[in-house]
Amino acid sequence: MNETLTADTTTQEIDGVARRAREAFAASARTPEAQRGRWLTAIADALDAAVTELVQTAMEETHLPEQRLVGEVARTTAQLRLFATVVGEGSYLEATIDHAAPPQPDLRRMLRPIGPVAVFAASNFPFAFSVAGGDTASALAVGCPVIVKAHPAHARLSRRTAEIVAGALRSVDAPRGLFALVEGYDAGIELVQHPEIAAVAFTGSVAGGRALADLVAARPVPIPFYGELGSINPVVVSAAADAARGTDLAQGLVGSFTLGTGQFCTKPGVVFLPRGARLEEALPSLVGPQATPMLSESIASGFGQGISRLLSVSGVEQVAGSTTPVQDGVPAVVLATDVETLVRHPEELLAEVFGPVTLLVRYGSDDELARALDHLDGSLTATVHAEPGEDVAPLVQRLEVLAGRVLFDGWPTGVAVAWSQHHGGPWPATNTQFTSVGATAVRRFLRPVAYQDAPEHVLPDALKESNPLGIPRRIDGTLVLGG
Amino acid sequence: MNETLTADTTTQEIDGVARRAREAFAASARTPEAQRGRWLTAIADALDAAVTELVQTAMEETHLPEQRLVGEVARTTAQLRLFATVVGEGSYLEATIDHAAPPQPDLRRMLRPIGPVAVFAASNFPFAFSVAGGDTASALAVGCPVIVKAHPAHARLSRRTAEIVAGALRSVDAPRGLFALVEGYDAGIELVQHPEIAAVAFTGSVAGGRALADLVAARPVPIPFYGELGSINPVVVSAAADAARGTDLAQGLVGSFTLGTGQFCTKPGVVFLPRGARLEEALPSLVGPQATPMLSESIASGFGQGISRLLSVSGVEQVAGSTTPVQDGVPAVVLATDVETLVRHPEELLAEVFGPVTLLVRYGSDDELARALDHLDGSLTATVHAEPGEDVAPLVQRLEVLAGRVLFDGWPTGVAVAWSQHHGGPWPATNTQFTSVGATAVRRFLRPVAYQDAPEHVLPDALKESNPLGIPRRIDGTLVLGG
Repeated sequence: MNETLTADTTTQEIDGVARRAREAFAASARTPEAQRGRWLTAIADALDAAVTELVQTAMEETHLPEQRLVGEVARTTAQLRLFATVVGEGSYLEATIDHAAPPQPDLRRMLRPIGPVAVFAASNFPFAFSVAGGDTASALAVGCPVIVKAHPAHARLSRRTAEIVAGALRSVDAPRGLFALVEGYDAGIELVQHPEIAAVAFTGSVAGGRALADLVAARPVPIPFYGELGSINPVVVSAAADAARGTDLAQGLVGSFTLGTGQFCTKPGVVFLPRGARLEEALPSLVGPQATPMLSESIASGFGQGISRLLSVSGVEQVAGSTTPVQDGVPAVVLATDVETLVRHPEELLAEVFGPVTLLVRYGSDDELARALDHLDGSLTATVHAEPGEDVAPLVQRLEVLAGRVLFDGWPTGVAVAWSQHHGGPWPATNTQFTSVGATAVRRFLRPVAYQDAPEHVLPDALKESNPLGIPRRIDGTLVLGG
Repeated sequence: MNETLTADTTTQEIDGVARRAREAFAASARTPEAQRGRWLTAIADALDAAVTELVQTAMEETHLPEQRLVGEVARTTAQLRLFATVVGEGSYLEATIDHAAPPQPDLRRMLRPIGPVAVFAASNFPFAFSVAGGDTASALAVGCPVIVKAHPAHARLSRRTAEIVAGALRSVDAPRGLFALVEGYDAGIELVQHPEIAAVAFTGSVAGGRALADLVAARPVPIPFYGELGSINPVVVSAAADAARGTDLAQGLVGSFTLGTGQFCTKPGVVFLPRGARLEEALPSLVGPQATPMLSESIASGFGQGISRLLSVSGVEQVAGSTTPVQDGVPAVVLATDVETLVRHPEELLAEVFGPVTLLVRYGSDDELARALDHLDGSLTATVHAEPGEDVAPLVQRLEVLAGRVLFDGWPTGVAVAWSQHHGGPWPATNTQFTSVGATAVRRFLRPVAYQDAPEHVLPDALKESNPLGIPRRIDGTLVLGG
């Protein structure tokens, strides 16, 4: 379905880009905040200007529809501009000053960039989680050079995007070597093992993430590995919510689990709902047999295997949609089971299946629901549909230890790029406490440094007594707003 | 030299304390900030009240002098009280609110406790980095249950401290199972592999930390491992500083590298100084042959091996002190070499030797100094001694990528417990970007959770519209001070 990628970056080339990234870091680590903001806005402007060409290439390689891709470019450039704002605002530096109070010395702490970052692009967001996506934007924002490992499912788009990023960086005199693209499976392995790489950000499968994490852990010098991996994204529907608006919930669920042919890390993969729910009754008329294309043949094949695994469990039935793939596409399908079956087969039934499928789990009582929830692993999201006046506090307490984002009366697809976003969660959703979306994504690429009794002229601007950047700082224990 | 520890915690006991810790977490995760502050102050008060007894036991087990131990208890209880202040101030929650702005939902983010924490106590700080030390204090502060693995070098003190901590927690009605002590080598291994443990904090050797990190990385569900490991703590003395105050610097150096018989993770282990330095000339008269006891026989033995390793390198000579151990103690010793030798043998000469030894490295020019610095690994600290008017910026830029704390005209031993402290650094000093001392140590035991379109009554107090805690929050992108 996709072009075969032949341009594998060689070992020698990997070594070259990694060494140039380290050289660039000497300059980028000291580039003023405002200038780094200009790097990001220059990239955003250049991508926006090339949207027609980029979307055309993306359509050819990913089979995603035009409107979705145009929206994704807008999301990507808005994200670049948000990070420019975050860097300009300056709180992310965590500037902290404790004046000398003998015997305590003068001590000043701030966050500094960690070094060259390896970014592994995802297949399912060819813009927002790819070459110029959130990982690249948040690393560049704080002064870290970036080497992107292209995803082979959109190789031409990756190369063209990289050309645009590199051109934009040149146009604002960014350091040479600040950004590079590499291609190929072996290139990715060599990249995470290269001594000049200081951190790795990865969006992809649990198996792929685990393999890379193991490689990183085995390095002579360990570095942080930030994996955004698999997620089942449980949804809980109360009996009262189903009674009040079961049909609306069915429409919302279908819209969410079929969005982008179900190829979202936040797709609702399991829905706990009361036995005999209106929601379930409404589904057959909402999920037709029409098929939509997947990102690649290997992803379509994996989807088929996932459906087979679910249906191989006795007690799982098909309640809506179709499992018959057609030429160039797959139809959506809804499966259903009960708590007893789920509890007997949690590993088969609660592992992510990437694509347009969701599993309904019918519960008979709150106790039975609670027993089912005990079998869930970590997720990016967890969703509650309940009616006003219902006591959902115990349910929320159960869900908030399982997920990075808890939603009420909504659907988990659609991840707002915002100051307060958290796109992460307990294993296997991610392997750390960090986010790959939202303002705090920059944290992944920063390390603290404290300066003790430093002469004023040696201190970075963020820590100079006069606060030339006008940023918020904590001074002698008290938070003080800037400017 | 020490008692043999016989009380190994069994596998069944480990499982029991881990499960009770998980049960306690259900309560501790929801305990109000103010109540958690009372846990910490109750522990601090109880330790202060027992200082005489505790110091007596610590003297018997660690051979550290009374004055030092009394000071360390004070440091430990001040640390507990600092974390109570940090929790009360509330910035650590990173409360962030983005009001709905269609199509964006209402989104609110804060940090929540991660779960039960395993703490590995250190040998060299029987109070401040042990049972009731910084790791325990920062985990309890944010609502995480703690299971301490006692250090066998002060087993009786560990048990007595644990009794006092447990009694103090009972006195303020803290959840049962919030704190436990376990003992034994195997117990430590079982602890980091236990499914109920959510994070591990370790202070100790590079080899021990690496072994535990590998065990943690191999878990079915990976969890964060925070290791504070080995550090050489380089010191650079400029020719001008040596000319102006070489004798004073010699006194400062001797005080720092012999403090606590050199058993500090921040001990200055390598000193770069100009050839023919006054500092070096002054050392023989300052470092006598008198011996002081080390923490344990195994540590004394390791010190002897380290000295032998350094002296086995051709081009390393002894310039002050003695290498002859006496009954119950070791003397301090100063060795010296040149840049050529260092560059040929960096692995032998730049690995930490725990104990009262420092290695002088004589340089002939700034270029030669720079060449030597290229061979340094990461450290907790790096120190510059220079004169006003010297351009030390290039040197600082070189050192700040190697160390978590950069000091000027001081000595690295003595780690202030403060808002702006950072006690961490690039590998092998630590394996993460986190600190084990200072206000931000709590970050290790927190994970973000975002709430989307949550009803007000479901939100934690930190995120309620009315800000009942009166804490600083970021609202619609703007930082707003509390109450």
